[in-house]
Amino acid sequence: MENVRYEILPEIAKLGHVALETTDLEKSLWFFEEVVGLEKTETVDGVHYLRAWGDFDHHTLSIKEGPEARVDHIAWKAKRREDIGNFANLLREADVEVEEVKAGTEAGQGDAIRFQLPSGHNFEIYFDMEKPAAADPKHKSILKNQPYKAWRKGISPRRIDHVNIGTNTDASVITDFLQEKLGFKMREYLKTPDGNLGAGWLSVTNLVHDIAVMGRPDIKSSHEIHHLSYWSDNAQDILRAADILADQGIPFVGPGKHGISQAMYIYVVDPGSGVRLELFSNGYLIFEPDWEPIEWKADEMAAGFTFWGEQSGMKPEDLTTISAGEPLKSPKKV
Amino acid sequence: MENVRYEILPEIAKLGHVALETTDLEKSLWFFEEVVGLEKTETVDGVHYLRAWGDFDHHTLSIKEGPEARVDHIAWKAKRREDIGNFANLLREADVEVEEVKAGTEAGQGDAIRFQLPSGHNFEIYFDMEKPAAADPKHKSILKNQPYKAWRKGISPRRIDHVNIGTNTDASVITDFLQEKLGFKMREYLKTPDGNLGAGWLSVTNLVHDIAVMGRPDIKSSHEIHHLSYWSDNAQDILRAADILADQGIPFVGPGKHGISQAMYIYVVDPGSGVRLELFSNGYLIFEPDWEPIEWKADEMAAGFTFWGEQSGMKPEDLTTISAGEPLKSPKKV
Amino acid sequence: MENVRYEILPEIAKLGHVALETTDLEKSLWFFEEVVGLEKTETVDGVHYLRAWGDFDHHTLSIKEGPEARVDHIAWKAKRREDIGNFANLLREADVEVEEVKAGTEAGQGDAIRFQLPSGHNFEIYFDMEKPAAADPKHKSILKNQPYKAWRKGISPRRIDHVNIGTNTDASVITDFLQEKLGFKMREYLKTPDGNLGAGWLSVTNLVHDIAVMGRPDIKSSHEIHHLSYWSDNAQDILRAADILADQGIPFVGPGKHGISQAMYIYVVDPGSGVRLELFSNGYLIFEPDWEPIEWKADEMAAGFTFWGEQSGMKPEDLTTISAGEPLKSPKKV
Amino acid sequence: MENVRYEILPEIAKLGHVALETTDLEKSLWFFEEVVGLEKTETVDGVHYLRAWGDFDHHTLSIKEGPEARVDHIAWKAKRREDIGNFANLLREADVEVEEVKAGTEAGQGDAIRFQLPSGHNFEIYFDMEKPAAADPKHKSILKNQPYKAWRKGISPRRIDHVNIGTNTDASVITDFLQEKLGFKMREYLKTPDGNLGAGWLSVTNLVHDIAVMGRPDIKSSHEIHHLSYWSDNAQDILRAADILADQGIPFVGPGKHGISQAMYIYVVDPGSGVRLELFSNGYLIFEPDWEPIEWKADEMAAGFTFWGEQSGMKPEDLTTISAGEPLKSPKKV
Repeated sequence: MENVRYEILPEIAKLGHVALETTDLEKSLWFFEEVVGLEKTETVDGVHYLRAWGDFDHHTLSIKEGPEARVDHIAWKAKRREDIGNFANLLREADVEVEEVKAGTEAGQGDAIRFQLPSGHNFEIYFDMEKPAAADPKHKSILKNQPYKAWRKGISPRRIDHVNIGTNTDASVITDFLQEKLGFKMREYLKTPDGNLGAGWLSVTNLVHDIAVMGRPDIKSSHEIHHLSYWSDNAQDILRAADILADQGIPFVGPGKHGISQAMYIYVVDPGSGVRLELFSNGYLIFEPDWEPIEWKADEMAAGFTFWGEQSGMKPEDLTTISAGEPLKSPKKV
Repeated sequence: MENVRYEILPEIAKLGHVALETTDLEKSLWFFEEVVGLEKTETVDGVHYLRAWGDFDHHTLSIKEGPEARVDHIAWKAKRREDIGNFANLLREADVEVEEVKAGTEAGQGDAIRFQLPSGHNFEIYFDMEKPAAADPKHKSILKNQPYKAWRKGISPRRIDHVNIGTNTDASVITDFLQEKLGFKMREYLKTPDGNLGAGWLSVTNLVHDIAVMGRPDIKSSHEIHHLSYWSDNAQDILRAADILADQGIPFVGPGKHGISQAMYIYVVDPGSGVRLELFSNGYLIFEPDWEPIEWKADEMAAGFTFWGEQSGMKPEDLTTISAGEPLKSPKKV
Repeated sequence: MENVRYEILPEIAKLGHVALETTDLEKSLWFFEEVVGLEKTETVDGVHYLRAWGDFDHHTLSIKEGPEARVDHIAWKAKRREDIGNFANLLREADVEVEEVKAGTEAGQGDAIRFQLPSGHNFEIYFDMEKPAAADPKHKSILKNQPYKAWRKGISPRRIDHVNIGTNTDASVITDFLQEKLGFKMREYLKTPDGNLGAGWLSVTNLVHDIAVMGRPDIKSSHEIHHLSYWSDNAQDILRAADILADQGIPFVGPGKHGISQAMYIYVVDPGSGVRLELFSNGYLIFEPDWEPIEWKADEMAAGFTFWGEQSGMKPEDLTTISAGEPLKSPKKV
Repeated sequence: MENVRYEILPEIAKLGHVALETTDLEKSLWFFEEVVGLEKTETVDGVHYLRAWGDFDHHTLSIKEGPEARVDHIAWKAKRREDIGNFANLLREADVEVEEVKAGTEAGQGDAIRFQLPSGHNFEIYFDMEKPAAADPKHKSILKNQPYKAWRKGISPRRIDHVNIGTNTDASVITDFLQEKLGFKMREYLKTPDGNLGAGWLSVTNLVHDIAVMGRPDIKSSHEIHHLSYWSDNAQDILRAADILADQGIPFVGPGKHGISQAMYIYVVDPGSGVRLELFSNGYLIFEPDWEPIEWKADEMAAGFTFWGEQSGMKPEDLTTISAGEPLKSPKKV
């Protein structure tokens, strides 16, 4: 009975954080703290836990030094504490290897699980996460619903928004997994001329996408991250970001506006790790429970990717990606 | 077993529309179509069905002439078709009178139910709703995910956002009903000096509120609507709205920024019906499944209502409300 | 004595208007009135006199049909009525042919003179110009210092800003003429690798430029116009213009930000005449009487032309220009 | 002969700076440097010389500690070096006492004169002023026409804009002096019910006003300053300023939009000195040499002062002013 399946189906509530390893810690911290303007919650065992002024979770980005630049994992918050175990069961039933991550392995975080998408991208699911106040009381907002003062330094986005991952394998295998195992809903997608799924934008929230999956025959790996994204409230904030980046001599692509998602963008690469950051604003929300995914055909994708503005793909650095997979680091197998 | 309760609990997906009756149809249509810039889907039997350029539903505001200015009902879209019947059952079990509204009673809409909150506010729940393309192909956006071109005329907000209702009875009776019977979650609330709930902001979506309930000893009725609200993408759009309204000689309150919701606002009254419209932008989203409602005490409410800008309550027209209740008009009792 | 020279030197107060001839009047009027949103003052003898909502002069753009798309003349308002005659004398002393244009030849305009720059660009200087109120009282602003309501339709820029002319001859001959004969001040300029002036931005007002002169070996004529420009108050207005243009299917370049002038831009071509329009905002003003012109060397011009955003020159239509010269049409030689 | 008069008439080019004395230096510096985000050129003899990121002059605001909070003088840059002497002669001919201020008395500044308006307001006129690069190379913009990086900290306005002075004497005596002796042009003015000049907005530049003069029977002195003003490029920057001020707990009036000048505003008082600062954006420019001053009658002034938004005068702190006069401090009489 379908209702029974639904009853026990665990759910993801939102994108949690991205765990980044960089070969140049100082430069990455300069970029994310001084230029982007993220706040530091704390540093524990060499891991710097950062978040934006409107992020409630303990961290939405962690950065530590490593031998190669890579994303160790992308983390998602479940809807209920018991979803962690239920996700573990459901994934194991589907022959997915699941590792257990004990509370405290990441600062501020409770018990979690880690596993890989069929493409090898590392995912983490947690439920418990501290929501600490600003470490420095002077940085605290007087608003009771806002962790930090906005506009303290740099670009100052409000919150984490989404991740975009790439694979040189069949993207539909990933999007099927996200939909069937993790409850994501397809919102918009690219159909290739031969009728396959070229890319998909999926979400568990009212955002058009919490994650995008790009089929990318041009890259060498099955488990790359194209970018992570932080959100700003206003289109003009993206222009202000352009001013700040250009005057720091940091190259970027944009500003432009996507057709898909209808959102404004700038793409800029962290000079420390090479991970790409999308600065993001505007766009639409999907409240429809009976949403019909929007299909974009190959000949419509010019407007789909770039409704207007500077296009991705015009500069050499547009093609860079870094790995978001590799062997899971968490110690204990369940 | 708790899961079983969950399994059958019907859910609301989003705010659908507001059904307005006005004593001056021409003036209300001028206001909502020419000044605000809503698009007309169609007119059927004297009911004008309007929506914003980014609304997907057939209508988010309906306007017809009537002997008094009032909101006939506030409508909500359920998550699943079967939720309509399940809500009917659940409400009847709680001794709430439920009327059935046959498909087609409202243009574009399938079967629905209507009932009253304990305060007498009329609610409607539907699932099926047409999502028609722009009637005039020249008004259609070239974007596949956007019904109309933006910026065709007037203020041009993107979509409906929320409603704010008032009562001179105990507001907590309404917010309890919304939470227990309809699945709303409390997001922020005002605690009065004597420890009661003064007002609550609740949602079923990632918005901070789809509905706000204000305890208002200053009004004469238990079932008023303070305002309905349309959303614009950027704070500057609210300033542009101020230019447009001021140059039409239409009085308004704002611009300002709420502490609660962190959103920009302008309040303006439809000169035809007297219903208040909030033009709204920015603010935050709540993705947290374990959100702790933000409590604002009486002495914090100055910042809660108005973080900055022109305050509500400074002008006589701030107090006007119109009824959102009165006897249900739909014919057949289930 | 230098003071004596100064005493009698006539002065230009501002850019007045551009007189455009188009091969497709209907399309040009659609573009400038419906898409750009200029207001029509009146139509006299087949000439459509347009201006923006914040322009005080009778017109800042005139459009009439002609056998080829061209700019008939670029007009400047003198500081004093007697400057017209003084400019005529001064120009004739320099062997410049000067034609007299009688009051009324252009609707709303008093006596004027026309002459050509050494490059063949046609200039007009006038002093008297009607400042009529909005023809339709409903379009009139309630503000006493603003001719029309803003935001009535389309992009809705505030006022004319500048012109940009090109020549395949030595640009410094033009900029010298502008400075020595007409009192323009050099504000910023491009120095070519061989030490010549490649382009200059000059003004008589506090704007960085009322006119730019581009040395363009890539074009075929000595007297082209690259673009005319209208100003909007906010950077976000340029993004809104991008939305409007993209959804009309009208190609454009930008948005971007110039280093020179520090202004935001979009370039879009009138589909009727082929004349290019720059939508323009932000930037700086020059109040310094002892301004040292900013020199940009060839290797600095990437940032000079495009501080960030989509660059000019990326699309084929970027190279199009139309003539701003050809034989003067005004009848009577002084 | 009128031309001869014109020939020798010295001219003012622009507002230069405001010299502020504060009773709480630390708090004033915190306000202007950290909250407003002005840059410090240097500190000499206890005088802190500040400017905005787009100001070219050595300073546009100087702050030093003093026994009472006051503006020592308001300084204007002349168009030519010889205008200093010519202004001195012209003023002395009109029986105005003129003091000479030797080069170096103020850091960065050449020879200057000081004198009082008939109301007792202290004015300074200078010509030579250093235009130093940013003291810290890391704060320097890569743009050759911009002294500092924008957006380094705080509100970060671009440049000084205007001053607004008040008097309890006849305002027309001041505006006549500004026009007849200093070459200001009346742009907009308030006519009182009894036919007198209530207030005037005047400029020597294309701005609507470099100075406003308010007749204020409600204040106790003939020579007060109501506010000095800094300019931001975009209306949204004023909203961002509101966020910053509100989250610092600093009270302010606005945001709103003036009818006169059509500019956005926030008024905020320096908690150190009590001087009022207007944060300012948008508005119109006047290029017309034959501008007819806009007259606002008493019953039009509601829209004149506040086209929309929070009105001046709603809060007690709106009435505060500090002196901009008192005995001139400069040592030597010419």
